[in-house]
Amino acid sequence: MATMKTWNLKSRPVGAPTPDNWELAEDAIPVAGDGEYVAETLWLSIDPYMRGRMNDAKSYAQPVPIGGRMEGGTVGRVIESKTPDVPVGSHVLYSGGWSTHWKATAKGTQIVDENVVPLSAYVGMMGMPGMTAWAGLHNIGKPVAGETLVVAAATGPVGTMVGQIAKAKGLRVVGIAGGAEKCAFAVDELGFDACLDRNDPDMTAKLKEAVPNGIDIYWENVGGPIFQAVWPLMNPFSRMPVCGVISFYNATQAPTGRDWGPQIFRDILTKRILVRGFIVWDYQEQYSQFVNEFVPMIQEGRINVREDVSQGIESAPQSLIDVLNGDNFGKKVIKVA
Amino acid sequence: MATMKTWNLKSRPVGAPTPDNWELAEDAIPVAGDGEYVAETLWLSIDPYMRGRMNDAKSYAQPVPIGGRMEGGTVGRVIESKTPDVPVGSHVLYSGGWSTHWKATAKGTQIVDENVVPLSAYVGMMGMPGMTAWAGLHNIGKPVAGETLVVAAATGPVGTMVGQIAKAKGLRVVGIAGGAEKCAFAVDELGFDACLDRNDPDMTAKLKEAVPNGIDIYWENVGGPIFQAVWPLMNPFSRMPVCGVISFYNATQAPTGRDWGPQIFRDILTKRILVRGFIVWDYQEQYSQFVNEFVPMIQEGRINVREDVSQGIESAPQSLIDVLNGDNFGKKVIKVA
Repeated sequence: MATMKTWNLKSRPVGAPTPDNWELAEDAIPVAGDGEYVAETLWLSIDPYMRGRMNDAKSYAQPVPIGGRMEGGTVGRVIESKTPDVPVGSHVLYSGGWSTHWKATAKGTQIVDENVVPLSAYVGMMGMPGMTAWAGLHNIGKPVAGETLVVAAATGPVGTMVGQIAKAKGLRVVGIAGGAEKCAFAVDELGFDACLDRNDPDMTAKLKEAVPNGIDIYWENVGGPIFQAVWPLMNPFSRMPVCGVISFYNATQAPTGRDWGPQIFRDILTKRILVRGFIVWDYQEQYSQFVNEFVPMIQEGRINVREDVSQGIESAPQSLIDVLNGDNFGKKVIKVA
Repeated sequence: MATMKTWNLKSRPVGAPTPDNWELAEDAIPVAGDGEYVAETLWLSIDPYMRGRMNDAKSYAQPVPIGGRMEGGTVGRVIESKTPDVPVGSHVLYSGGWSTHWKATAKGTQIVDENVVPLSAYVGMMGMPGMTAWAGLHNIGKPVAGETLVVAAATGPVGTMVGQIAKAKGLRVVGIAGGAEKCAFAVDELGFDACLDRNDPDMTAKLKEAVPNGIDIYWENVGGPIFQAVWPLMNPFSRMPVCGVISFYNATQAPTGRDWGPQIFRDILTKRILVRGFIVWDYQEQYSQFVNEFVPMIQEGRINVREDVSQGIESAPQSLIDVLNGDNFGKKVIKVA
């Protein structure tokens, strides 16, 4: 009998997750009931937000229960169907989780077309990361030609999109990334104006040189020392979409030392800075607007995408650990089948 | 010969200002040149932002130079005029500074009418504090009936207006103020739903009880321990207009201990909180919209104003010191002539 492999959450991590926080279960492939379909997973997306789901803490989404399947965006092929909306053989986008198969109804399932973009792109530039970048800029960053944008994790899936959309809109784009190879990619392949190595001891001074007119948009997805280097360079009336704070995700307690709170609010006041957190699904109703703007940019070759592909569902835990350490280079996806 | 008294900045304070940071000069009353007028000051407004002008630091306004006249909003009566736009005998609103007289041109001078509101109100509810409250709510707070707003310094000039505008729009309003007398005033006279004493050791627990549905708008004008009590109660999609951080104005160095920065950004992200600093003059083009909405509220008796009046220009330094300590009760104004 054919079986399905699924990663379930075994224990909640304290600090950084370790492989023994998960356990790989093997079960029979499910059977579709009325109105349901079953898909085999072709691509599983691995993203930093998954760390948050492993905590038993109130957040914008429910945590994964102990023993429950890890969540994740997937593209799959339908292998059995009892719903006419999702026929056998079609390719579908769904939050199928860390598994070789999933069962669902048509609700929340989207048929995708591999002739528009490659299937893996539906969990990348056309999916959550691309929509995140577009929605955060469209609704909060509000880029204006001639302004300067800084984005950290610049070669990650969201940073890649943020920078390229901003370049297409006529901004000066400065990336921050981990290492010379990623920085070269950001400048040479993505067309960023500059990219700084976050491990460079002179990063703060070099950042200042790289933004001679200050920073109008800081795309926050990391926090920590990079934030502290960026913040004093923020211009009056600058905007800061808060999309992630990956450097804090594994933190077990609040740091001590200098309390940045007062300085942050003082600067927000005197510089009239806008800071706003968002989750991509807040703007779900704008998805077709995103597609209409974005697909032509892809088809004109203005969007360059790099994927970091791991093989097999077995690689999911280490892939997430790597992503949280910044060890991926490009959008992390797992080729499952 | 009649003379004019003026407070000039003598030295920049380190921490809290002391009376010897200023010096009272006595000079001849100025004479109007072509296109100028001279006014005697009737009312001088004393406001927390003046502390910032005493620093030699880049902010949203130039600092007062050493030896220069302290800035401040004034209402006066014109005693000499060589400009037809500002006739002798008219009442005018201007930034005349800490002085018994000023000389200016028509530019930036506004004729005011004591039949609409009392003259002192033009530096209060109809002036900078009233416009600040209205503009911050209109543009950032965006109150919706049924929501909950929390405002600290609740009986101060801005807090008073913020709370009353929010009540008029159908919100639950909870104030925080210094002492039982101010809290009684907020509830009994201003119509707030609740008011907490910021010196109450149980303030944090009582605040939680006072906002059973969480906080949708926190009007930030203080920072410090009140912010720390409020912040965990912020709702998803809540808004925080940052209007002032008075508890930091006298700070000489960043505090240490717990670093609130990471928690702030984490919450901004997961709760999608909007934080935005503003200065009233950012919205100057909305002044007539403010007047059109606000004057009817005043005339219908829906806006209650309390002034804390000191006598004579000599009282200006101590008045500012008191305001920075929260020792005023109501809008601090000085009756100069």
